[in-house]
Amino acid sequence: MSQLLRVQNFNVSRDGFGAGDGQSLERPFGHADPGVLFAWAGATASWPMRTDPGGSRGLDDYLTRDYDRNIGAEIMGRNKFSPHRGPWADYEWRGWWGDEPPFHTPVFVLTHHVRPSFTLSDTTFHFVDTDPATVLEKAREAAQGKDVRLGGGATTIREFLDADLVDTLHVVVSPIELGSGARLWESPDELLDRFHCDVVPSPSGVTHHLFWRK
Amino acid sequence: MSQLLRVQNFNVSRDGFGAGDGQSLERPFGHADPGVLFAWAGATASWPMRTDPGGSRGLDDYLTRDYDRNIGAEIMGRNKFSPHRGPWADYEWRGWWGDEPPFHTPVFVLTHHVRPSFTLSDTTFHFVDTDPATVLEKAREAAQGKDVRLGGGATTIREFLDADLVDTLHVVVSPIELGSGARLWESPDELLDRFHCDVVPSPSGVTHHLFWRK
Repeated sequence: MSQLLRVQNFNVSRDGFGAGDGQSLERPFGHADPGVLFAWAGATASWPMRTDPGGSRGLDDYLTRDYDRNIGAEIMGRNKFSPHRGPWADYEWRGWWGDEPPFHTPVFVLTHHVRPSFTLSDTTFHFVDTDPATVLEKAREAAQGKDVRLGGGATTIREFLDADLVDTLHVVVSPIELGSGARLWESPDELLDRFHCDVVPSPSGVTHHLFWRK
Repeated sequence: MSQLLRVQNFNVSRDGFGAGDGQSLERPFGHADPGVLFAWAGATASWPMRTDPGGSRGLDDYLTRDYDRNIGAEIMGRNKFSPHRGPWADYEWRGWWGDEPPFHTPVFVLTHHVRPSFTLSDTTFHFVDTDPATVLEKAREAAQGKDVRLGGGATTIREFLDADLVDTLHVVVSPIELGSGARLWESPDELLDRFHCDVVPSPSGVTHHLFWRK
């Protein structure tokens, strides 16, 4: 089977925003509260940041734990990596995730402001200033036969959708409204010309949208 | 996390039967047509017996591919292994699955008629005449820290439920009636005293039931 480019566990509000306005160091999702956006995943047994042994093992858990199945690399936009804009003042910033980032693979950060690669635990971050098709080629090579995850944010996913490079998407619609921010879509129906979609309401209140190519 | 005992992708009819009456070499599921019972899984991209590159990648696919995630051993009843009853006439029968069984782990077959272990590809079958708790202990040791799958049939799953040894169950209710056979339940509600349950209808027509311990 070929190497897929997969969006996994990407959260949007009911009005289609993956993050709010005004990203900052204190508010990585701008005016959106990540505790609300990600509540469905945080309640599951497989949530990577879980520190106690509990958690649900129903539908949401199946989808949470697919996050890293057969993933060999990730591609993300710079705004997922950092709240900074423009040239780097220095290279002190090493991502939001501390010494043990949850990726465990090479990560390719798309940015106009490249900087040297660095490694934290089993995650290595590379910085590339190129187009979606070219970074996907690099990520596939790094993934050594496994799939590549497209980590977001919304703007980055839109760029890869516009280039028709995405094979599957798992998008989680939370029952909140953001009003503004980084928009993934006006409606999931926009993708139905190119993708099949299973729409699966969860008992937790979110609605999973599972897209795959026609 | 402890090692779970998991039922995965176990199919039953709307009236609660995992197989029909009259199992034979020609009809492993008795009067039930496995092509109908398993149609939902056969249509997915992750179906292990798939020979062409197509297949759906929606809800049913997520559940199909969880079949072997973190599984280190399987326990099955003798009637899943073989259509024979009573003492073995010889040891020619080596399961329904040909030279490449889809288990890829040690498999423990519960039977009153033990026979020598044997290996096919990366699956080794062991035959044990004991109670559910004891075979589970053996399987956990063989699984080396991974979970154990309880493979069925319905009678075997009932025995492990009665002994309160099952941690999670994924049971797929197909929109067919069998009328008789090996019964898993009269109704999924029978398990709700001990388990949470997400009931998830799939666009394919089956209804996934995802149980986990309270």
